[in-house]
Amino acid sequence: MRSTGLRLSIGDDCALLQVKPGEEIAVTTDLSIAGRHFRLDWHPPEAVGHRTLARGLSDLAAMGAHPVAAFLSLGLPRELTKQRGRRLSWIDRFFEGFLALAERHKTPLAGGDLAESPVAVADILLVGAVPRGKALLRSGAQEGDLLYVTGALGGSAAGLDCLRKVSARNSKHVDRRSTNDEDPLTPHLWPEPRIQQGLWLQRRGRATAAIDLSDGLSTDLGHICMESGVGAEIDEASLPVFGNASRKQALHGGEDYELLFAARPVTRIPKRIDGISVTQIGRVIKARSGQARVVLLTKAGPQPLSRGGWEHFA
Amino acid sequence: MRSTGLRLSIGDDCALLQVKPGEEIAVTTDLSIAGRHFRLDWHPPEAVGHRTLARGLSDLAAMGAHPVAAFLSLGLPRELTKQRGRRLSWIDRFFEGFLALAERHKTPLAGGDLAESPVAVADILLVGAVPRGKALLRSGAQEGDLLYVTGALGGSAAGLDCLRKVSARNSKHVDRRSTNDEDPLTPHLWPEPRIQQGLWLQRRGRATAAIDLSDGLSTDLGHICMESGVGAEIDEASLPVFGNASRKQALHGGEDYELLFAARPVTRIPKRIDGISVTQIGRVIKARSGQARVVLLTKAGPQPLSRGGWEHFA
Repeated sequence: MRSTGLRLSIGDDCALLQVKPGEEIAVTTDLSIAGRHFRLDWHPPEAVGHRTLARGLSDLAAMGAHPVAAFLSLGLPRELTKQRGRRLSWIDRFFEGFLALAERHKTPLAGGDLAESPVAVADILLVGAVPRGKALLRSGAQEGDLLYVTGALGGSAAGLDCLRKVSARNSKHVDRRSTNDEDPLTPHLWPEPRIQQGLWLQRRGRATAAIDLSDGLSTDLGHICMESGVGAEIDEASLPVFGNASRKQALHGGEDYELLFAARPVTRIPKRIDGISVTQIGRVIKARSGQARVVLLTKAGPQPLSRGGWEHFA
Repeated sequence: MRSTGLRLSIGDDCALLQVKPGEEIAVTTDLSIAGRHFRLDWHPPEAVGHRTLARGLSDLAAMGAHPVAAFLSLGLPRELTKQRGRRLSWIDRFFEGFLALAERHKTPLAGGDLAESPVAVADILLVGAVPRGKALLRSGAQEGDLLYVTGALGGSAAGLDCLRKVSARNSKHVDRRSTNDEDPLTPHLWPEPRIQQGLWLQRRGRATAAIDLSDGLSTDLGHICMESGVGAEIDEASLPVFGNASRKQALHGGEDYELLFAARPVTRIPKRIDGISVTQIGRVIKARSGQARVVLLTKAGPQPLSRGGWEHFA
């Protein structure tokens, strides 16, 4: 048995977890509500389960933590818990998506709660572990650092646009899991938390700051700048824009769950980490009072990049 | 700074917690939904905040764990987040109740999530710590053990009945925190998690099994019997029934949040632990196939005690 892990699970008052001596515990929680974070008529239940867990795992990735256990609280209208004829119930399909991702990231579901609710809600809590003092924080970026992102940006927002159009044409929602990485819906429905990439950065001490892109590059880079007390420049031409996504979606679209991180200019960052591309997109500069924290360098010259205000379906 | 505690809180991707070497981590989560676990027209917002946290703390108490941090996810209709004139908003009053209890139990609120929701939901997650291998489990009760409860039983169910009657007479809900321990609503609105009593039992190794009474004595004693593979006898005459509560409420009413525990017959258990009464109510017996796990010894003779099926407002 590993010394990190789940010692006691569902069936007592609490789950009991152990971490290795010298590790600290990372905890994150994310609430998803039908109509706001997902739509029962747009998102296949498997994707809702996948996305619920992916949100939490992505927060661990951004800290460079490895997952120890997940806890899930579900509030559901009664009809979502019932089979209809020979078809699986919504909740069964939700768990299919949830548990497939959990298995890939060796994350046991250690507890949770289930209650009847007039609106579907899912609250995910992830517990992870990271060597003491080694977590990737938002607050360590320094002037002169280079900025990097994993993967491609804007794919989730573009996929959501697609879903909106499909559902306007067709009342039946997209069915089951797409297995095609080129599918324009994949980044939105099946985002892949960058756990391995976060661990790689943490173990080698290569990043000075990191965050996951849940609210969009413009907003999340703003968080790093704020917490680190710095500014940033982004080279528009260098942005890795996902297939069919627009420049605006890449800058402001949320839920890509890629990692954004800073590293000293002398630090070697490879072109790929564990199979995922890494792109240098800009640099950390001094914060200047009275000026935008984040500047976008375009062909037409520098422009202030304000937060895009990703708001799900609001 | 204590070596157990909160190292990094709200403002990064995860909270970071540390426990002492040799401690393991206890985690529990409880979902509360308006109309099911509380009613906006019956429960003062401070009591909803208090009860939300008390549910989680009580699970830690039942494990003999001390609290390290709380995480709260709130989904609320927009109007509950707004002040009306000079009156505090619902959410402000919720936090007043929540934070007062958190402070008494030295439990920092380390993170969480807030989202708009058509129905009010609160998911509480508690992280605690307990020396490795010392947690009070449901599974350790042995034949011959004596059974004990803290405090008095049935008060929460009796209080809920009161609320139901008051609200039938009066459309305005009960206002603000009652400060009177004799108030019949106190056990329901302001249950006190038995953290100190759980710690006392754990540190001295006096209990073989423990659980908190959230679903009612008949149901929760059934959990101990099931997990320990034993049966139990309760002496009806010995039950510590709360002031105005009925025998039925004491046996089956939920949400008292007292501790039920088993101890070897040779173990000394005091009459009070940290100011709270402790009452011996029965004993652990051999499980007999084909017979009820839990038996109530009454003047009229033994009766099978089946689970009361506490169902909140269902």
